[in-house]
Amino acid sequence: MLTDSDTPPASHLSDVTKRFLLAAKHAEIHVLEQLSSNCRIVIAVKHVVHALQRERGASNIYIASKGTRFAAQRNTHIQSAIAAEDNLRSQLKSLFLTNKTVDGNPRLLSSVTLALQGIDYLPVLRDKISSLSLSALESTRAYCRLVAGLLTVIFEAADIASDPTITRMLVALFNLMQGKEYAGQERAWGAIGFAETHFDTRLCDKLSTLQQAQQHHFSVFNEFSTKPQRQLLAQLDSSPASHDVMQLRNMIAQLADGSPIAPEISEVWFDVATRRIDAMEDIEDTLTEGLVKAAKRKVTNAQEEMTNHQRLIESFSDEHVPEGSPLTLLFDPSMPGLVDDHSPHINGHELDTQAEALSAHRSFYDLLQGQAQYIKDMTKELEDAKRAITEHKLTDRAKLILMQQFQLSEHDAYRRLQKQAMNENASLASIAQKVVDIAQQSRPKSAAKYRG
Amino acid sequence: MLTDSDTPPASHLSDVTKRFLLAAKHAEIHVLEQLSSNCRIVIAVKHVVHALQRERGASNIYIASKGTRFAAQRNTHIQSAIAAEDNLRSQLKSLFLTNKTVDGNPRLLSSVTLALQGIDYLPVLRDKISSLSLSALESTRAYCRLVAGLLTVIFEAADIASDPTITRMLVALFNLMQGKEYAGQERAWGAIGFAETHFDTRLCDKLSTLQQAQQHHFSVFNEFSTKPQRQLLAQLDSSPASHDVMQLRNMIAQLADGSPIAPEISEVWFDVATRRIDAMEDIEDTLTEGLVKAAKRKVTNAQEEMTNHQRLIESFSDEHVPEGSPLTLLFDPSMPGLVDDHSPHINGHELDTQAEALSAHRSFYDLLQGQAQYIKDMTKELEDAKRAITEHKLTDRAKLILMQQFQLSEHDAYRRLQKQAMNENASLASIAQKVVDIAQQSRPKSAAKYRG
Repeated sequence: MLTDSDTPPASHLSDVTKRFLLAAKHAEIHVLEQLSSNCRIVIAVKHVVHALQRERGASNIYIASKGTRFAAQRNTHIQSAIAAEDNLRSQLKSLFLTNKTVDGNPRLLSSVTLALQGIDYLPVLRDKISSLSLSALESTRAYCRLVAGLLTVIFEAADIASDPTITRMLVALFNLMQGKEYAGQERAWGAIGFAETHFDTRLCDKLSTLQQAQQHHFSVFNEFSTKPQRQLLAQLDSSPASHDVMQLRNMIAQLADGSPIAPEISEVWFDVATRRIDAMEDIEDTLTEGLVKAAKRKVTNAQEEMTNHQRLIESFSDEHVPEGSPLTLLFDPSMPGLVDDHSPHINGHELDTQAEALSAHRSFYDLLQGQAQYIKDMTKELEDAKRAITEHKLTDRAKLILMQQFQLSEHDAYRRLQKQAMNENASLASIAQKVVDIAQQSRPKSAAKYRG
Repeated sequence: MLTDSDTPPASHLSDVTKRFLLAAKHAEIHVLEQLSSNCRIVIAVKHVVHALQRERGASNIYIASKGTRFAAQRNTHIQSAIAAEDNLRSQLKSLFLTNKTVDGNPRLLSSVTLALQGIDYLPVLRDKISSLSLSALESTRAYCRLVAGLLTVIFEAADIASDPTITRMLVALFNLMQGKEYAGQERAWGAIGFAETHFDTRLCDKLSTLQQAQQHHFSVFNEFSTKPQRQLLAQLDSSPASHDVMQLRNMIAQLADGSPIAPEISEVWFDVATRRIDAMEDIEDTLTEGLVKAAKRKVTNAQEEMTNHQRLIESFSDEHVPEGSPLTLLFDPSMPGLVDDHSPHINGHELDTQAEALSAHRSFYDLLQGQAQYIKDMTKELEDAKRAITEHKLTDRAKLILMQQFQLSEHDAYRRLQKQAMNENASLASIAQKVVDIAQQSRPKSAAKYRG
C-alpha cells in the first residue's frame, strides 16, 4: 500500500496531459470555425445558383423568341447573377485567400475552383446568347453544367462536415437545391417542347424522369429537415402554383403523340413553373438561416467548454492524491481492456465508492471520459447523418458504371436504376449497391494505382 | 460569333480562380503533412504498447512468484517502457503543443489525452506491483486497459486518415497490433491457469475466444497488408514458436476438465508465447517503416505538383483566347448537367477538335478537371479502404448493445456475435449490422440531443 507521504502530488498528472486536453478542445473549436466558414460559402453558392437558374430560364425564352422577348428580364437576372458571383468571390477571398496557411478542405476547394472557372466564362456565354449564336438547348446545357458544378460544392460541404447537426442541415439543403434544379430543368424542357409546338414520347420521358428525380430529392429533404421546414414544402405542394404545374404536366402527358399545341402556352408554362421554383427558394432561405445560427452556436458552446476545462485544470495544480488507487482508466473497470467476463456493472459500483475520496481526480478523469464519450457519440451520430450522402455517391457510381458498360447516357443510366428499383420495389440506393458490387468483383484492387 | 478583338484575354480567368487552384493544392499538402505527423505518433504509441505488453507479462510472473522471480526482467522492461513513454510525450509536444494554432484532429487528440492520463498513473501501478499489493489479475487488467487506450489512438489515426494508401497501412497495422494484444492476453490467461495448476472450462473458453479474435484481426491484416508483409505473418505461423504455442494450446484444451498440471510449465508457456509475440513486433516494424516512407513520399509528390501548377498558371497570364467557345465546364459535354440523352461519347470528340485551338486553356482546364477527378478517385478508394474500419466500429456498437440489453460482459457479448456468425455462416460484421439495425429501429432520432 502507498502512504500519503510517498504519493506524488496531483501534478504527477503530467503537464502534457493537461495541455493535451486543452489542445483537443482547441482543435474542436478550430474544426467548428472551419465548418461555419464553409457554411458561409454554401450560402453564397446558393444565391449564385438561384440567380443562374432564373438567367437560364429568361435566356431560353430570349433565344426561342429570336431576341424579341424577355431581353429586359434577362438583363435584370444577369445583373443579380453578377452581384451574386461577386459576393461569392469576395467571400472566398476573405475566407481562403487571406494568409498563406490554407487549412480549408482540399475536396471543397477543388470543387470550388472548378465551379469558379465555369463562372469566369459566363461573360462569353452571355455574349453568345446576346448575339443569338447559341441554340436554346446549347445555352441550357451550359447553364446546367455550371449549376451542377456549384451543387457539387454544396454536396462536398455536406460530405466533409464533421458535425451531425450541421451535416443533416446541409444534406437537407443539398437535396432541396437538387430537387429545385430538376424543377428548373423540367421548366426548360417544357418550354422547349411548347416552343417546338409539340411533345414526342422521348421528351415526355425526360420530363417524367425529372419529375421522379424531384420526388426523390424532396423525400430525402423531408427525412433530414425539421418539422417546420417539411411543412413549408408540404404547403408548396398544395399551393396554386404546384396545382397549375400538375395540370400542365397532365396536359403535356396527353400530347405525347405529338399533336400540335399553341406556342403561347410556352410562357404560361414558364410562369407557373417559375412561381413554383421561386417558392422553393423561400424554403432554402429558412434552411440557410438555421444553418448560420447552428454553426455560430456550435462555436460558442465549444469555446465556453474550453473555459470550463481551463478552470478545472487550474484547480488541480495544488491538490494531492489521497491514498489508494487514483481514478484513471488503469483502474476503471468500465473501460475495455482484458477480454474476460468481469461484469462492468459491479465494478461501476466499486468505482463510485473508490471515487468519493478523489473528487478532483474524479472530475478530471470524468472530463477526459466525457470528452472521449462525447466525440464517440458525435462520430456515431455523424455516420447516421451521412447515410444519405453515401447513398447519393452510390447512385452516382452506379450511374457511371452503367454509362461505361452499356454506352448509356446519364439520363438512360439513371432511368435504368429508377425502373429497376420500381420493379424490385427496392430503394434506388440498394439497386445502386448491387451494380457497384458486381462491378467491383470484376475490378482489380487498385490502391497502388494512386500516386505513391 | 465572337471575333478575336472582342475576346477578353486569358486573364479573364479571374485571379481568384488561379489562386484557388493553388489554395486547393496547398490544403492538400497541409492535410498530408498532418497525416505524416499522425503517423509519427502512431509509431511512438506502437513502441509504448510493445514495452507495456512485456512489462505486463513480467509483472504477472513477478506477482505470481511473490516477487521471487522476474524482478530483474521486470525492471528492464519498466526502463524501456519509460523510455518509450518519454519519447511519445516529446513527440506529442513537438507536434501538437508548439504553437497556439492547434489543427490536429479532435478525435485523435482526445484519444491521446485519455491514454496519456493512464500513462501518468503508471508509477502508482508499478509501486503497487513492487509492493505486491495487487493480484496478477488486477495488474493484468490495468495494463490491458492502458494498451486498449493506446490501440484506440492507432484506430482513430486510421479512421481519420484521408489518404487511401496510408489508411490501408494503418488498418493493417491496427489489426496486427490488436491481434498481438490478444496474443498477449492469451499468454496472460494461460500463465494464470498454469500458475493455478488447473484449467476449468470457463478459462478454456476465454482462451479460445482470444484465439479466434487473433485469427479475425490477422485475416483483416492479410487483406490490407502487402504481399511481403503477408508472407512474414505466414512465416511466423509456421515458425517453431507458433508450433510450440499450438502444442500447448492443445494440451490446455485437454485439461478443460480441471485435471492438475505442474506449475513449472507456466514459464515454458510464457517463453514460447513471448517468442511468438516478439516475432510479431518485427512485422510491426516493417509496417511502420513503410508507413513513414509512404507519408513522406505523399508530401513530396504533392509539393512537386504544386510547383507544376504554379508554372502552368504563370504561362497563361500573357496568352489570349482564340476565337470560339473557350474550353470550360460550361461547354464540356462530358460534365454532368442537363438530364438529357446527349451521348457523352460524340461530344468527347467535338471537345477534342474544339480544344486543339486552345492549348493553354485546354491544359488549364485539364488541370482543374484532373485535380477534381483525382480527388474523386481518392475519395472512392478511401471509402473502400475504410470498410474494415466501419466493420470494426459496427462490431463495437453491436457488442455495446448486447452488453446493455442482456447485461452481458464484453467477453460474452463478443462471444455471442462470434457464435451467431458461425451458426449463420455469415461475417461478424453482417451479424453486428443486424444487431445495430434492430436496436436503431427502437431508438428515437437523436440528432437534437447533441449540443445545439
